[in-house]
Amino acid sequence: MRSTDGPDSDAWLRYRRHLFADDDLGLRLDISRVDLGADETLDAFLSRMEDSMQQAFDAMEALEAGAIANPDEQRQVGHYWLRAPDRAPDDAIRDAILEAIERVEGLAASVHDGSLRPERAARFTDFLVVGIGGSALGPQLTADALGRPATDLLRPHFFDNTDPDGMERTLEALGDRLESTLTIVISKSGGTKETRNGMLCTRSAYARRGLLFARHAVAITGEGSQLDRLASEQGWLARLPMWDWVGGRTSETSTVGLLPAALQGLDIRALLAGAAACDAATRRRDTARNPAARLALAWHLATDGRGARDMVILPYADRLLLFSRYLQQLIMESLGKATDLEGQPTAQGIAVYGNKGSTDQHAFVQQLREGVDNVFVTFIEVLETPFHEVEPGIGAGDYLRGFLLGTREALSETQRPSITLTVRRVDAYHLGVLIALYERAVGFYASLVGINAYHQPGVEAGKKAAGEVLALQVRAVETLEALEEPIGLDALAAALDLDAARTELLFHVLEGLAANGRIDREAGDAPTAAVYSLG
Amino acid sequence: MRSTDGPDSDAWLRYRRHLFADDDLGLRLDISRVDLGADETLDAFLSRMEDSMQQAFDAMEALEAGAIANPDEQRQVGHYWLRAPDRAPDDAIRDAILEAIERVEGLAASVHDGSLRPERAARFTDFLVVGIGGSALGPQLTADALGRPATDLLRPHFFDNTDPDGMERTLEALGDRLESTLTIVISKSGGTKETRNGMLCTRSAYARRGLLFARHAVAITGEGSQLDRLASEQGWLARLPMWDWVGGRTSETSTVGLLPAALQGLDIRALLAGAAACDAATRRRDTARNPAARLALAWHLATDGRGARDMVILPYADRLLLFSRYLQQLIMESLGKATDLEGQPTAQGIAVYGNKGSTDQHAFVQQLREGVDNVFVTFIEVLETPFHEVEPGIGAGDYLRGFLLGTREALSETQRPSITLTVRRVDAYHLGVLIALYERAVGFYASLVGINAYHQPGVEAGKKAAGEVLALQVRAVETLEALEEPIGLDALAAALDLDAARTELLFHVLEGLAANGRIDREAGDAPTAAVYSLG
Repeated sequence: MRSTDGPDSDAWLRYRRHLFADDDLGLRLDISRVDLGADETLDAFLSRMEDSMQQAFDAMEALEAGAIANPDEQRQVGHYWLRAPDRAPDDAIRDAILEAIERVEGLAASVHDGSLRPERAARFTDFLVVGIGGSALGPQLTADALGRPATDLLRPHFFDNTDPDGMERTLEALGDRLESTLTIVISKSGGTKETRNGMLCTRSAYARRGLLFARHAVAITGEGSQLDRLASEQGWLARLPMWDWVGGRTSETSTVGLLPAALQGLDIRALLAGAAACDAATRRRDTARNPAARLALAWHLATDGRGARDMVILPYADRLLLFSRYLQQLIMESLGKATDLEGQPTAQGIAVYGNKGSTDQHAFVQQLREGVDNVFVTFIEVLETPFHEVEPGIGAGDYLRGFLLGTREALSETQRPSITLTVRRVDAYHLGVLIALYERAVGFYASLVGINAYHQPGVEAGKKAAGEVLALQVRAVETLEALEEPIGLDALAAALDLDAARTELLFHVLEGLAANGRIDREAGDAPTAAVYSLG
Repeated sequence: MRSTDGPDSDAWLRYRRHLFADDDLGLRLDISRVDLGADETLDAFLSRMEDSMQQAFDAMEALEAGAIANPDEQRQVGHYWLRAPDRAPDDAIRDAILEAIERVEGLAASVHDGSLRPERAARFTDFLVVGIGGSALGPQLTADALGRPATDLLRPHFFDNTDPDGMERTLEALGDRLESTLTIVISKSGGTKETRNGMLCTRSAYARRGLLFARHAVAITGEGSQLDRLASEQGWLARLPMWDWVGGRTSETSTVGLLPAALQGLDIRALLAGAAACDAATRRRDTARNPAARLALAWHLATDGRGARDMVILPYADRLLLFSRYLQQLIMESLGKATDLEGQPTAQGIAVYGNKGSTDQHAFVQQLREGVDNVFVTFIEVLETPFHEVEPGIGAGDYLRGFLLGTREALSETQRPSITLTVRRVDAYHLGVLIALYERAVGFYASLVGINAYHQPGVEAGKKAAGEVLALQVRAVETLEALEEPIGLDALAAALDLDAARTELLFHVLEGLAANGRIDREAGDAPTAAVYSLG
């Protein structure tokens, strides 16, 4: 551990020595403060980890060459090819990528010039993405980070859940503009229930206005999926491919991210170029010159390679508010694993949260600096900022930088580790750089701790259990329909042959139905002592 | 630790025994699964903690009676009085609260009926809150949770940072409607720099349209503050009080939260009534009947009374998306403390994050279920939901409930603790219930672990350091102005008599100025080897 008494006189030397800077990427990365509070210095740690890092480079090279890098699902992992199609392992994949980009651009152009127009209006003015998880987080990030209300060619909207109240609100905000809204339904598997439900609610909304959904709909999905077949049968405006070698959480530079961005009028070629440039830099086998390798190693040192600290992302830029939410999925779904690559039990992962600075300073920096010592902070500094003078020679943006630097010092004083990322500006190119940087860092980190970053086996259990709850609901309603008299919970559970655990689920189902008037409920002398009936 | 083999056959009995339900509040609280993975059963824990809980009730009663419950700052803590003015410790406070609510309602009514109108337009159509931390998070929560685009009387907008790019974007979205926008500047101290900067940028925007800011501005601030004097001198439309016995993070039911909500057309009397009803329930000294006491105890058991697990908030309702962000401040700023009430060192706090279900299931439930075992989840279920049929007899909202219950089961299977809160619906009354519930739980928890929940000493260090950075910038620019030739970093640091640590700050300042063309920079052979000059 480093000396903590007095101003850290060698901090500046450490900063200089460790600073990664790449003007082509418009990126700097400072990890000199990540060993604060650690048992090992950064220098000793980097030396010790170099062999492991070289193995991670080997694994990444094999992945990029087309190896089955996701062994559980027997899949290739190809998101890097999306930005460098010539590196794809075969011509079919290369051609598919190139064709998809051209189709995205062609579709967007025909929407913008009005040659592809809605049923009743002269041109499309808005688009609605229906998708969840990786099918929403990237499009939401780019829409918010890069959009400009005055110049966006189409306005973005999202259904990212199966909450009918939330959908109603979005439709209410659209109002009559639904008639000039292009709906993009995104589901790789084509069977995601939230997305299916969102699609059905959207279709009803068009229908209520006497409009054909198919004349306003585009599908992005795996070829031959349920959604793909539906879109084909109903003659939707277009179907764009999503491939099984692209994971949802790394799909921003695929059709999933590119079509919404292109419709909004964002520069998708710049996004791809930024990601490609960062990919080139993060292929360097020289750890000192590879920003993703350095980032992954910094995470490892800060979290002891076992998630011992949470990663707090603090971008000092309103436009990057959703970046931490995007990274939550990318990092937590990739790294939060129960078994390692040898199948041995582990409990990996890094928790990610944060919103933006300096706003979050007024929310939870109190705890980061003085409270439970379980975080490391990533400050994201944006160099270019408009000048709005608030004091002689001082702009509002100078305050933003001042708060970043001040909080960074304040955290260092209490030995809280931090990383500082500096990007030139928030535009499509630099957002591409950031996305690619974190994608690669996640891959490296997974190698360092020996896990598969590209599957998500733990999300199936909840979906399966949810399916059982819905089946239970159907059976419960059928039973109530057949009864003449109100029935109590325990009696109904017995009639349905439920064990105690499922009786609790039944209780929630019945209470939910009763609260919405779908069944009748007569209260008893305890919350679980009501009787239910179908009127 | 409870048995983990097979279906937990006594789970249902535990659920029934521990379920808190209050129909007047429209609230249920299930903590029966919070001891999963803990060393102690919930029953044993509750017995052991009862004496401490009674002491927490004593402390809370003293607080409500007007004690100096925030000893560091020698302040009373009065947010509960805001919803029950008759309980205020003296008539002056009671009358001030009552008068403020009436003034909020009067102001909103005069805006709505057009008797208070902007300089050039017939009526106000939008409002812009300029505030940060507690002056923004509550208003943002209510605006998003309770707003309806089709019926809101005014549309809400926010400046919650000092990012000029973010401000420009908000102004761009407003466009010509700035002429009919009411700006509410909120700062208790009246000296918050981010808010001052936001006010100045707003004032410039009105001025560019030839409009007087004062004719569109309202101040909410402490009487006699810098902001209060400014508003008085310039003749703003109104000044509303904010009192030193209300903390920023508990100010939603003060003028801070009420004025924006009233302008939007939300039912502030229902918000206050919900909070008051919950306050009444959380004054009960019977732990079993006090939902806030049970919640605080559940946190204690889950986190071992030392923040050992993060609190993940998963409301299954789009309207509650911002609730976890609101709670981040309320909980982390209140509990993240370095010293206890006796002045002894500690490292308290609970990290809070989360967005909404089922969306987050597709982002990070993988890690919550299978990865690093450092969280407990609070599911928030909303009973009432519109019915949009997606399968025979099944609505989109049934899926939402199914996913909640399914994920809750999936987490229990891997021994991850959870709490389930059920609210009848998301409206002003029930949002008031939720806010009051968490305010009280935070206060109880602080008592249980022996800390002051009502100060935030750790946020000053960063502000002070930020001030030094800005002073350094001014000195650096002055020095550059006086020089004939470009100067390198080290030489400039020497000229400014800076130590090594401050040289790093100088580097960031110079690079920021150079990136925006405010000084000239000629690159050197290393990032820190550039030379700078003023053209």
